[in-house]
Order: sequence, then structure tokens, then C-alpha cells
Amino acid sequence: MRTAANAKLPTTAPGNLPVARPRLPSADDILPYLRRIDDARWYSNFGPLLTELELRLASRFTDGAVASTVVNATQALTLTLQAMDLPAGSLVATPSWTFVATAHAIAQAGLTPWFLDVDHASQMLDPALVREMLARAPGKVSAVLPVAAHGAMPDIEAWLAFRDETGLAVLLDAAAAFDAARDARLPTVVSLHATKVLGLGEGGFLVTDDAALAFRVRRMTTYGFNGTREAQIPGTNAKLSEYTAAVGLAALDRWPADRLRFFLAAQHTRIGLAMTPSASLQSGWGSDWVTSVCVVRLPEGCADPATEALLGHGVETRRWWGDGCHLSAAFAGYPRTDLPVTERLSRSVIGLPFAIDLAREDVDRVVLALRTTPGIA
Amino acid sequence: MRTAANAKLPTTAPGNLPVARPRLPSADDILPYLRRIDDARWYSNFGPLLTELELRLASRFTDGAVASTVVNATQALTLTLQAMDLPAGSLVATPSWTFVATAHAIAQAGLTPWFLDVDHASQMLDPALVREMLARAPGKVSAVLPVAAHGAMPDIEAWLAFRDETGLAVLLDAAAAFDAARDARLPTVVSLHATKVLGLGEGGFLVTDDAALAFRVRRMTTYGFNGTREAQIPGTNAKLSEYTAAVGLAALDRWPADRLRFFLAAQHTRIGLAMTPSASLQSGWGSDWVTSVCVVRLPEGCADPATEALLGHGVETRRWWGDGCHLSAAFAGYPRTDLPVTERLSRSVIGLPFAIDLAREDVDRVVLALRTTPGIA
Repeated sequence: MRTAANAKLPTTAPGNLPVARPRLPSADDILPYLRRIDDARWYSNFGPLLTELELRLASRFTDGAVASTVVNATQALTLTLQAMDLPAGSLVATPSWTFVATAHAIAQAGLTPWFLDVDHASQMLDPALVREMLARAPGKVSAVLPVAAHGAMPDIEAWLAFRDETGLAVLLDAAAAFDAARDARLPTVVSLHATKVLGLGEGGFLVTDDAALAFRVRRMTTYGFNGTREAQIPGTNAKLSEYTAAVGLAALDRWPADRLRFFLAAQHTRIGLAMTPSASLQSGWGSDWVTSVCVVRLPEGCADPATEALLGHGVETRRWWGDGCHLSAAFAGYPRTDLPVTERLSRSVIGLPFAIDLAREDVDRVVLALRTTPGIA
Repeated sequence: MRTAANAKLPTTAPGNLPVARPRLPSADDILPYLRRIDDARWYSNFGPLLTELELRLASRFTDGAVASTVVNATQALTLTLQAMDLPAGSLVATPSWTFVATAHAIAQAGLTPWFLDVDHASQMLDPALVREMLARAPGKVSAVLPVAAHGAMPDIEAWLAFRDETGLAVLLDAAAAFDAARDARLPTVVSLHATKVLGLGEGGFLVTDDAALAFRVRRMTTYGFNGTREAQIPGTNAKLSEYTAAVGLAALDRWPADRLRFFLAAQHTRIGLAMTPSASLQSGWGSDWVTSVCVVRLPEGCADPATEALLGHGVETRRWWGDGCHLSAAFAGYPRTDLPVTERLSRSVIGLPFAIDLAREDVDRVVLALRTTPGIA
């Protein structure tokens, strides 16, 4: 028997409304870029398309921004932490309330995730609270890795002040915040995965105004090379191909129109939820910034019943961050503080169906189903 | 200033004959697969194209083969070593005579490369010699990572016997041996990088008849998930997108014809070199198996003069493996044995221009230039 090593991942049952329905650039959008690849016969290793993609990504940010593309955001986090040259095994303070990739990235970098609780309103680490916790750290803390919750950005000024005051490295996991992330003063990793608001399949990038850090990450993505074939520093291969860059360039071409489509889909959702005050959207969601997921907060304890009620009406949901990383078997052994807010969020936050071309009827279906949940009004 | 973090990598000077000129599937070859992606709106996370690619890759191997695709061959090596659960920091015996990716992969896995010398004829580790060296190891050896030299395969039966006798894990780095690698009894990593004989930009795969190992690597490429969103084991993201799979499927469609083209280009080279006995090709090169590079062995000490002489005639060459990994700054601190054969090979082996569409005139230009090197006849 010859088989693919395919993992079974959740798929949508027929007739159900899926929680996410990505739409990346079409074959026709991508085709002109593929023709450029054919002409150049340059397929990877920082060819003209990848260079153009990186310049266009950097141009979205504050002055001095350098963008280093990486195979995906998880590895961009790992390589950036490695490039920061932190003491092996030292603690990296990070929220448990995040996608497991954040914690995997820290562990793969040879460091130790230290799971902290988040602020209830923002669902993110609060620099003032982190500072208080530092005195109680169970070991040497070398860095903090805050996470932009579901596409919302944290207070960058507050994190810059935290970095100045503590001297700790700060790296922002802004995986879902392609739209909102526009400030390169804090090293920031953005995902370009298929499920994100701007996707190219698999990919991500580090953006920073610290050119030396960006160049070090770049070298680590290509065997520690820097203009020669000598490995000067430890590294790996984490390059994107020209084909992936082609998808990214096509996605950037469509971005102004796509952003408006996400904005409009978000307004439909807002209107649909207007009469359901017990389901609240993130502050600024779909108005100040757009993202590819619709995360609502329900009354505490309603996450599981709502999941069930919606599925009964053929509406799929996802608790994107589960119960927090600390409960995954892979992270059970890592240090953490008490996590009461994380526990409350895990009982009240769910992702509703959302997509760039979400139909008004779909919104109605979601809202009507949601209102069958006991406790939701 | 907003900039891409582009590393300067060697490029070909105008008018020069490049050492490699990859040709991947054209936009038109790939287009039907892109249309399938548009229809399915499934862009990554083990979609239908990737599953088809893995089945087609596995079908090239002996019965029981399972193929797990990974973002690239370097990371396939790292994740497979991690999946083998070897003691942290233990030694992995590997040749210094290889591309630095081999050593990076071991170090990134949290293990220690132990650089051994190779057999002079095959340019590969010899299991009998490795066995002798084990007694003199400077620490605990947990695995051996032999390398298929420039596309040639080692003696699989001998390595299987070695594994049985020593109980050590053996993982084969067959990065350049897409054509020759057909046996899944030894876990084997193959590269699908743009510069390889079958390329899809950036990519690679593990093939093995150990289904449990393949599945563990698969889970490590997707956050330790296995059918749910709980991270059960440490991992990262190392998935290929559907776009990359599209390129791979198009490449496999063309493979029977492309293999013949490589074969024919190799015969041109063979004829061109027939009258230059001091430049010898690898055993079986371009006849028993095809690869994307033409590696010749010159009289000892001729590698540098030949490089210079050929460049004087506008012919670019590459010493693909430099002087061996152990001399790279990144690996200077790792243990090694004496490496007299590696040193001899580094003074005598160079890569000549080779490509799927190498013209007869190009072969003539290479051979005439080569024969201007003092010591070559």
C-alpha cells in the first residue's frame, strides 16, 4: 500500500455553512506573474518577484521598515527569536490565549514559553500587568511575545515604553493583523496563510525598523549565507519560492478592492448582530481594521452551548484558540501563572462564519441560529 | 527608506555560461491545476492537490512507502530527526562533504553533527568505515545521516545491515537524488527545490515504509495536530500550499519527458568529455540515473585552477560543497574526525554547467575551456 501521510483535519459537512471560506487570487490574477517566472527562469532564492513582494510589504509600514519573508509566520517567530540571540532555555512571556503556533515557535527556538493571562477587554497581554508579573517569574525572562488578538493591534507605544523600561526583547505576533499592522518600530510577524485576510497559501514575514535583525533573519532563512556560500551563522532553509511570491503579488494587486469587500461583509455582520447585544464584536472589528475571522464574545458559559446550537442549524463555528495553549498536551509541562481571564474567554468567545463574500442570507442564518442558544438575547 | 531584506546571492555575469539553468513547469503546464484550486477554494492544510502529489511521489517507491511533504528538504531532515526522538544533544554522524543544509538540519533538531570522512570513490559515507569510527566517537552517537552524493544513491542494503547491527537510527539525505531514490526501506529525504531534477520552487519530502514515522513527521508539520486542533506533540508549521502542489503535479506530468531530456543532455556532456580522461564523471551519472548537476573529478589540486580557467572563458562553475561543512563558521565548533578524503575531494571536484536544455555548443565551450587548465588532459 502506498499512501499519502495525510492528517485528517476538520472539513465542512455538506449543506453546512463553513466558519471560513478563504478566497485567494484566481489563476487569471496570478498568470501574468507566472509568465514573468517562465521568462526569467528564476524560481527561488530571492528572485525578482520575491524582492518586489518584500518591497511592497515594507511600503505599508512606517519609515525604515524592512520586510523579510519567511515560509510561514510560525517559523518567522522562531527564526526571529533565534536571531535575537536570547539565552538558551530562558523564558519568553506569552499569552496562553493564542493559537498554539505562538507557543510552538518559542519552543522550537530552544526557549521556554511562560504562559501569562490576558486583559479581558482586549484579549491581549497588558504591558503593565506583564511588568508586575516579572517579579514572580519562575526563571530568567529574556523576551515577551504579545499576540495581536484575531487581527486587532495592541498599544504599540505602551510596548515600546515597556521595552525601554525593562530592557527585554519584545516580538509581536500579529499573525492575523495584516490590515492593522502598520508600525515597524516593534519587530512584528504577520501571517500570509490562506486563512488570513491577505493570503498566498503558506507564508509570512517579519517587519522591523531594525535592519540588522531583519538581515539576520534573512540569512537564517538561507543557511546562514550572506553573499557567499559559506554558512556564517546557524540557520535553516525558510525561503519562499517565486511561485509563492507570484500569488502574493496578485493578492496585493487585489488588496484595495478586497479590503473593501471584507469591510462590507463586516458591516452586514454588524447589522445582523445589532439586535443581539449579548454577542459583542471586538472593538474596531471590520471598521477600524479588517480581518478574516469574526470573533464574538457571548455571555460567560455560552461558548459551548452556542457551538452546539449553531451546528444544529448547520452553522459551523470555531473556538479558534480552544481553551488556551496551556491545556494542549504539547505544552502541559511549561510554566504558567493563574489564567482566570483565559478561562473566562474560553467559555465565552467563538468564531462565527465569515468570508470576503459572505452573503446577507448567510448572516441572517448565523444570527437566527445564534439566537436559539439559551442565554443569548 | 523601505527595503527588502534581500541577500546578495551569486548571479551570472552577462555573456557567461551559468553553472545551472533550472527550468520548472511553465505557466501553461500549471494553469489547469490552478483552476482546480479556484474551484475548490482550498489553498493549504493538506488539500486535494497536495494529497495527490504525495500519492504520486509515494508510488515511485517500493511497496509500503508513505510520502510526507515538507516545506523543504532541510526542514524534512530536521523534523524527521526530531520525530525519531533522539537524546537531546547526542551526536549524529554525517559527512562533512555535503551541502551545509545537512549540518544545519542536525543542529536545528537540537542534535550535534559529528563530521566524518567519506569514501573517495563514492564521495559518500561508507557504513563499514562509520562502524569502525563509532568506537572513537567523542560522545553518544544516536544516528547516522549519510548523504546521496550529487544524486547518486549509496548502497541501501549495506545501510540496512548497518542499522540492524548497530541499532542506530539511519536517515538518508538524498536531496539531489529524486531520480535514483526508489527504495523506502531506509527513511529518505528528497528535495524538490528549483535547482533539483524535479523542482517545484521550494519543497521536499520524507519517504519511508515506517508509517508511524511518516505520520509523526506529518503531525510535526502541522502544529502537532492529528484530526483535532489540539497540539499533541511539539512541532511547527512546515506545510506546502496547494499552489506549490500544483507546480509539483505539473512537474510530475512532465517528468517522463524531462527525464529523457536530462539523459540526452548528459550524453552530450559524456561525448564532449570523452577525450578528456582526467575529468571523470560520477559512476552511473546520466545513464543509470539523472540529476541536475554535472560534477566532475579532476586531478588533485585542479579544482581552483579549473575554476579560474573556465571563468576566464566565461564558463561558470561551482564547487557545490565548498571545502566541506566543517570549515563553515557556523560549524567550526562541532566535533570531527580527520578528513583527508574530504580535503582531497575539495581540491579536485567541481560542478560544470549543466541544464535540461544544455546545447551541444555549450558542452563544446565547457570542454574547450576546461582543457586550457594546466594539468587537465
